[in-house]
Amino acid sequence: MDKFLKMINENNFKSKFKKGNFGIEKENIRVDKNGEIASTDHPKIFLEDNEFIKRDFSESQIELVTPAVSTVLEAYNYIRNLHNIASLELNSDEYLWPQSNPPVITDVNKIKVAKLNNLEEVKYRENLMQKYGAKKQLISGVHFNFSFKEDLLKDIYNTLNCNKTFREFKDDLYFKIGRNFLKYKWFLVYLTGASPVFHKSYCNKCTKSSERIGREDYYLKGIYSLRNSKCGYKNNEDYYVSYNDLNSYVEDVYRLIQDKCIQSAKEYYSPIRFKTKNPKNVLENLKKDGVEYIEIRMLDLDPTEQCGVSLDTLYLMHLFLLYTAFKGDEKYTIEVHNEIIENDNKTLDNKDEKFVKIDGKDVLIEEAGFKIISELQKIVDTLFDGDEEYKKVLDIAKIRFLKPETTISSRIINDIRESKYSDYFIDLSKKYLEESKKEAFKLIGYEDFELSTQILIIDALKNGIKFDILDRDENFISLNYKGHIEYVKQATKTSKDSYITALIMENKLVTKKVLEKNNIRVPKGGYYEKIDDALEDFYKYENKALVVKPKTTNFGIGISIFKASPSFKDYKRAVEIAFSEDRSILIEEFIEGKEYRFLVIEDEVVGILHRVPANVTGDGEKTIKELVEIKNMDPLRGKGYKTPLEKISLTEIEETFLKESNKDFNYIPKSGEVVYLRENSNISTGGDSIDFTDDIDESYKKIAIECAKTVDAKITGVDVMIQNIKEKANINNYGIIEINFNPAIHIHCFPYKGINRKVSEKVLKLLFKEINFNERYGM
Amino acid sequence: MDKFLKMINENNFKSKFKKGNFGIEKENIRVDKNGEIASTDHPKIFLEDNEFIKRDFSESQIELVTPAVSTVLEAYNYIRNLHNIASLELNSDEYLWPQSNPPVITDVNKIKVAKLNNLEEVKYRENLMQKYGAKKQLISGVHFNFSFKEDLLKDIYNTLNCNKTFREFKDDLYFKIGRNFLKYKWFLVYLTGASPVFHKSYCNKCTKSSERIGREDYYLKGIYSLRNSKCGYKNNEDYYVSYNDLNSYVEDVYRLIQDKCIQSAKEYYSPIRFKTKNPKNVLENLKKDGVEYIEIRMLDLDPTEQCGVSLDTLYLMHLFLLYTAFKGDEKYTIEVHNEIIENDNKTLDNKDEKFVKIDGKDVLIEEAGFKIISELQKIVDTLFDGDEEYKKVLDIAKIRFLKPETTISSRIINDIRESKYSDYFIDLSKKYLEESKKEAFKLIGYEDFELSTQILIIDALKNGIKFDILDRDENFISLNYKGHIEYVKQATKTSKDSYITALIMENKLVTKKVLEKNNIRVPKGGYYEKIDDALEDFYKYENKALVVKPKTTNFGIGISIFKASPSFKDYKRAVEIAFSEDRSILIEEFIEGKEYRFLVIEDEVVGILHRVPANVTGDGEKTIKELVEIKNMDPLRGKGYKTPLEKISLTEIEETFLKESNKDFNYIPKSGEVVYLRENSNISTGGDSIDFTDDIDESYKKIAIECAKTVDAKITGVDVMIQNIKEKANINNYGIIEINFNPAIHIHCFPYKGINRKVSEKVLKLLFKEINFNERYGM
Repeated sequence: MDKFLKMINENNFKSKFKKGNFGIEKENIRVDKNGEIASTDHPKIFLEDNEFIKRDFSESQIELVTPAVSTVLEAYNYIRNLHNIASLELNSDEYLWPQSNPPVITDVNKIKVAKLNNLEEVKYRENLMQKYGAKKQLISGVHFNFSFKEDLLKDIYNTLNCNKTFREFKDDLYFKIGRNFLKYKWFLVYLTGASPVFHKSYCNKCTKSSERIGREDYYLKGIYSLRNSKCGYKNNEDYYVSYNDLNSYVEDVYRLIQDKCIQSAKEYYSPIRFKTKNPKNVLENLKKDGVEYIEIRMLDLDPTEQCGVSLDTLYLMHLFLLYTAFKGDEKYTIEVHNEIIENDNKTLDNKDEKFVKIDGKDVLIEEAGFKIISELQKIVDTLFDGDEEYKKVLDIAKIRFLKPETTISSRIINDIRESKYSDYFIDLSKKYLEESKKEAFKLIGYEDFELSTQILIIDALKNGIKFDILDRDENFISLNYKGHIEYVKQATKTSKDSYITALIMENKLVTKKVLEKNNIRVPKGGYYEKIDDALEDFYKYENKALVVKPKTTNFGIGISIFKASPSFKDYKRAVEIAFSEDRSILIEEFIEGKEYRFLVIEDEVVGILHRVPANVTGDGEKTIKELVEIKNMDPLRGKGYKTPLEKISLTEIEETFLKESNKDFNYIPKSGEVVYLRENSNISTGGDSIDFTDDIDESYKKIAIECAKTVDAKITGVDVMIQNIKEKANINNYGIIEINFNPAIHIHCFPYKGINRKVSEKVLKLLFKEINFNERYGM
Repeated sequence: MDKFLKMINENNFKSKFKKGNFGIEKENIRVDKNGEIASTDHPKIFLEDNEFIKRDFSESQIELVTPAVSTVLEAYNYIRNLHNIASLELNSDEYLWPQSNPPVITDVNKIKVAKLNNLEEVKYRENLMQKYGAKKQLISGVHFNFSFKEDLLKDIYNTLNCNKTFREFKDDLYFKIGRNFLKYKWFLVYLTGASPVFHKSYCNKCTKSSERIGREDYYLKGIYSLRNSKCGYKNNEDYYVSYNDLNSYVEDVYRLIQDKCIQSAKEYYSPIRFKTKNPKNVLENLKKDGVEYIEIRMLDLDPTEQCGVSLDTLYLMHLFLLYTAFKGDEKYTIEVHNEIIENDNKTLDNKDEKFVKIDGKDVLIEEAGFKIISELQKIVDTLFDGDEEYKKVLDIAKIRFLKPETTISSRIINDIRESKYSDYFIDLSKKYLEESKKEAFKLIGYEDFELSTQILIIDALKNGIKFDILDRDENFISLNYKGHIEYVKQATKTSKDSYITALIMENKLVTKKVLEKNNIRVPKGGYYEKIDDALEDFYKYENKALVVKPKTTNFGIGISIFKASPSFKDYKRAVEIAFSEDRSILIEEFIEGKEYRFLVIEDEVVGILHRVPANVTGDGEKTIKELVEIKNMDPLRGKGYKTPLEKISLTEIEETFLKESNKDFNYIPKSGEVVYLRENSNISTGGDSIDFTDDIDESYKKIAIECAKTVDAKITGVDVMIQNIKEKANINNYGIIEINFNPAIHIHCFPYKGINRKVSEKVLKLLFKEINFNERYGM
């Protein structure tokens, strides 16, 4: 290994090892609120061809699959996002069982094979059920997919200058990893094993040599992962398969199939698999194309983590795989094979100390563990310059070997001692669902994206649509559904709107002219390029409420609003202010009413929103300050536009505003009394967003749709001033203020009051006509 | 009149009178290079439904029609533009005859009736030919359409508070204008008459009482406009029609039709007509809807003006019409009618002084003229605050009345004395065509628009497509073809490209990723958000020519180009410079070759352009300085981007550049020697644009089209680096540098070397699928 590390160091490869191709798969059983396996169907929204969210063995077993990404952290974030997405789309009162061992099975007939359209897959599962029993098939876990970056492998291959082809070099490397991985797997199982306890309903045989906790829960002393033991997810016999090279491996697996020990290669339950580009006919493709990546299948679901696996564990996996790649190895013989099986099932029996069998000798696991840790340390030092994330992994490993009671499995056993298998895990499930709810608007790892883009991607994943980032700063992504690519910027800038449509909406003067020509009610008024022309027209505006504004306005700068008609002096001043901001100005009548944002997507009003200034509602007991504190606890409220709403601040501005009505922060509003804290209704200053989608007269919706049609906009935010939302629109009681080419999505999904209008899914529906959204959403 | 002016003054209406609805129509005979009527067909490009460029009576008679615009100046510019457009699309060696009286007619059979599809119109013309003779129908002129702005009329109506309906008030006003106009028409004829001389082939009868100039040209002393005299464009009898009110007028014209004096209202050749919104069934519509506007038909083509009418004359017309509106009036009787006819035909006979008959008395025309001028002066002073344009009109009028030899007609007679009717006018025609050629890229009155937009509008008008300006600063227009509206910004931002297509092209990083993913050859390299990452990758770029640039580049700021591979020190410096301009940078291989701009419209390469630095080619005699002066005389070269090319400057930069090869501005290049004056090839610094559309291997065109398709662009400028334009494209000899979402059009229409690729018509073809461009252009 030292030789290898030296070569890496000398050739400046070391910084390249942090990147690789990482992927995670994990399974969870869907359970009801009592922790019993759910009898409902897989949520309809996840179609059978969804690449990310699938059914595994059972109809009640969800499998989440990330694509390959370049860093461990990305893979971790990806699985967290998929976990949240899946959790939030479960049938009501259902949860993801956070533990590898199955929930309490009161009736084995409740375990249904996945109801797939692919009948071959159904048949395969039925065979498994018969062969291994349904319960064993419910065992769930986490798979870790890994390969080196091809460029790096090529650079190393070129440096080594060995007598192999690149293909041979690569295959041999992955088989070396395979051999070392199996040999040292006990190290990982000790550190990550998280399925020590099982319910008696799982398996009578296994209860025999086990210890009991409470009335119905059992565990085997020294077995950290039941799943990795003979009671776990194993073939009926411990078949020997050679890992010495690709050919002998393929030959041996073929033999098992021929001997009818297994139906196909995928029934060979090895903790490590060699995968090919094309997932079908693995053995044939292995011979044809060689190893594309490896799949590590021994990780238990970690019930102490919301998403079933910790970032530390993933870093450990990466580090360990590098170790198996660099470490010297030996032939994979029957003896080695048997030693591995022995270690999987070595219990403490009556001893106090745990041993592992290494090269025929029993070694104290602590001693053997620290030996590996010291070698991992070298890798961290050489490859990762003592990177904190990887160092932390080793610190945790050291503690767990020094203090066996700190392992995940020990902690679980302890916790269950104080509770009950079923209660303990269903409580965790419920807690995790609450956490997912709080993160519903968040694409973890992409919090720098605008909320609208995060939400759009979340819904893309939910629908099995892949995404790629083209320009992160600009929220520029591509979406890919089975090869159909759509480019999207800032969630609503798409291929469906024409360039000129956006340019019309961007230009307030042009927008107004176009709407007006099409007989849409906009504020009447004039456009001026010269101060004198504007002043000369004063007589036109006499006795009218007015808005005077620069042609291009940003943040309201240069705008004057006269809710009563201005004097000529005030009018002149307003005109001058507006001209100081732009070369041309607009003077418009001021339309009375409240402003509502109509989000129109493809000739449909999908959401209507109204904003009100920051406020609290009294309970007759708490002060304004206390009420604000409580209101700010809402997870929708955050700071710096990372959440759909902003926390209310109590600054001088709010203080001054309250003073006007002789109140201060210590004022106690009466029960039901609404106290406003500011004049302006911006969300950014703590304003509330209120969904009015179902509350506004249809006539206004028709007008908003007409606006969109006039400029041929497929996605637009129409701002309408309305005097009375219950009164039909007429020429005098409303006006179109603006139409926006890049309307926010998130405000309609996560309003302060009202329901999630799922508008991002309408965007996806617009982009991907081939997906049948209607069927699943009733759209 | 004074009362009227006072009312206007008191009510702050005066500034409103400058605006109105103004339109101009004019006819010209197409002639060949000898000044004979052209025997070719009307240019195929002007379809029968073209609203702006039509056939009048004869197939060889072009009629240009402006829409109604708000100011005199706009109308003037419009007719100039139409004149240029029509002139430049004539068959080769054809010209527009600049004179109202017909050209020399050697064979009356050469006069063909317009070959229209509308057979009714053809029949009408055939009847006219029989009734009046073909020659008289060739008489051409200028029509001036006018109405007040409706708002202004309403304001006046409301102020006057009279006992009429608004409709009655308006009709009465226009009929008052009609009466006064006819009565004082002699004033206009004196000032604007421009058809004094005719060729003997025109009319034998007319030659009788005329004076002869040279061998074949005649004129009548004291007749400034033959066209307005009994020899001109008149009905066979001077029918009396009442102008006292709308009803009696309509009745009288009906009577003429019933009596078979005329076929329809439009055969009643009055110098003023009352028009309705709907141009069909004028009499019926007059009774139904009243007068919409008036048409003044007495203006001669002014052969001293390129476009047939001067701006001064148009201002005079406007002023005069206001005068007729404000002036007190009297009943239109047979006596008044006869006096008008008398004035039309009053020759000098043997007298030296010209008289006009006013209210039964002969008055010296000078005296009568000055009386009207003094009243016009009042209007100018009251309504236009002594505005220069209108004041100038009066100054000209004064001189013409004081010195009869300065009238247009006198000047024409004088000029023809020194030449010949035919030669004089055909020489003018040729001169005017040259002037039109120099203005080919210009939309007069809209020189503030980008050249691409000017050219697009020119081609729109050519194709009978109307335009409106939505935002002048932004080159934002709408085009309207029979109700089909297309919005266009900066000539190439249209409804045909999707918004995301533009956004992809706008973002160089995204463009590159998208092209690369679609296997298009772009410069290889990396994208960096951190300086350290870029520096770490130095080894990747060793031994390569490089470009280091900020992600967003403007005018080349922050870009470093290494045509040979840089040292680490230079590389580091370049990276730092790039990062000082942007948060992220691109490092790319430098692709050898010359850069060509491929303009792709709708999957077709419509133009290829290459730019070379400012240069001169020697003749063995002239100095560089002299050669530059000559090159700068090209009308395509101007200053400040108002022309397709910029004048070459001889500044310090050029001096320094020449010094490198030991030359200075006084160096005399050998014959054929090309001397470059700068390093950079920008057009803005005098560079030449060279059309390569037909010179580049097809393989590159396919690639450019592929680029456009990849981002789904309907209009794009693809910048390609090519090593050898005659060699087929391969992976090593070219690269795509950029694709541009708003490519310039004009560079392909007016290159320094090469032909006009008419690319703006390709844009129109893209926008208006219903127009059959292929037929007319062979597109």
